[in-house]
Amino acid sequence: MLRACNFASLNDKKMTANEAMHWRYATKRMINKAVPESTVNNIIEAIHLSPSSLGLQPYEVFVISNPEMKNKILPIAFNQKQVVESSYLLVFAAWTKYTEERIDKVFDHLAQERNLPAADIEGQKNAAKKYFSAISDEAQFYHAAKQSGIALGVAVLTAALEGIDASPMEGFNPASLDEFLGLKEKGLRSTSLLALGYRDEMNDWSHKLKKVRKPLQELVTIIK
Amino acid sequence: MLRACNFASLNDKKMTANEAMHWRYATKRMINKAVPESTVNNIIEAIHLSPSSLGLQPYEVFVISNPEMKNKILPIAFNQKQVVESSYLLVFAAWTKYTEERIDKVFDHLAQERNLPAADIEGQKNAAKKYFSAISDEAQFYHAAKQSGIALGVAVLTAALEGIDASPMEGFNPASLDEFLGLKEKGLRSTSLLALGYRDEMNDWSHKLKKVRKPLQELVTIIK
Repeated sequence: MLRACNFASLNDKKMTANEAMHWRYATKRMINKAVPESTVNNIIEAIHLSPSSLGLQPYEVFVISNPEMKNKILPIAFNQKQVVESSYLLVFAAWTKYTEERIDKVFDHLAQERNLPAADIEGQKNAAKKYFSAISDEAQFYHAAKQSGIALGVAVLTAALEGIDASPMEGFNPASLDEFLGLKEKGLRSTSLLALGYRDEMNDWSHKLKKVRKPLQELVTIIK
Repeated sequence: MLRACNFASLNDKKMTANEAMHWRYATKRMINKAVPESTVNNIIEAIHLSPSSLGLQPYEVFVISNPEMKNKILPIAFNQKQVVESSYLLVFAAWTKYTEERIDKVFDHLAQERNLPAADIEGQKNAAKKYFSAISDEAQFYHAAKQSGIALGVAVLTAALEGIDASPMEGFNPASLDEFLGLKEKGLRSTSLLALGYRDEMNDWSHKLKKVRKPLQELVTIIK
């Protein structure tokens, strides 16, 4: 009788978000195995769909599979091996400034996609311009960097749900990476790396370490 | 014959990460319905497991279900109705400073959990202290705020996978919220809100709007 069942659906049982968050860890060593393009595209799509303040998506993501480029980034990222052992190395880079042109472009696109008259989005445009012009350039960059962090969080969980290991990294020289990728000319500064690949269980010393987080009651306060 | 099948498993089919990211939207109106405690606990657990730079988890999360408190936060968040219509309102608040005490506490806990001699973590402690003492207080806060953004991203996707609507918000007066929640005394500054609940399809004007993101090629550059 069991043959009548839909085994595909039964086998297709996905990890829950929490199972995936437990399964993942900041993978330090990866094996030389390619992540399928369809899988990395799923991760990219999740980044693309990530929410951001006012919907401005104030960052760009560079998806690097080129081995020579990864080799050149290796010393910039303090020789962390997952940079070259990953299948894809993602570089998140945030806007250095919320310029009027950038704000206009996002809202003009929104109006076009939703078929709205230009007048309908003037208020949003002006509010955004007013908000960002009142804060320092440094604060603008950090605001954008935080938005890239939201997308990084979405990417980390999506990768884990896809069974892909991911190593988020802030340990690199942003100025050197910006120069190498020509980011300054694009009005961008690198904020995070995300190496995507498969854990090397034989050689990754961190694989067997207990996952440690601070006690829940130090992180979370429930107010009923 | 179908009766022999395990309908629980078939019905249990989860959304993929991308299905969840498409399903979700920044919900502006919610119905007055409680999110089950087990579900909000899953979202909290995902936040708890979120990665952070050096594992410092430099933020706290306040989980507010108290209606009077939500009513008082309403004007601080520019009267966005999801503040009070949500079942749980999460406040993410980042460390204003990476103090030596905070850094010591995290690494001491790590050593204890992994049964490491204190000497083994001295290097990590010192590297963290050196890094953060070299950057301005403002940069320290923004660094912590970015880490809270990673957790927010994880929370947004986890909520969607659980079928819970979520509205991430930066539109509020952080100074007023910090004062209301007594965050300054705790060395914290509020960075984001996340309202969790159920979409009000009748009254949410934003529910039917086309989800718009910038063209993928403006966000992502593939380097093969």
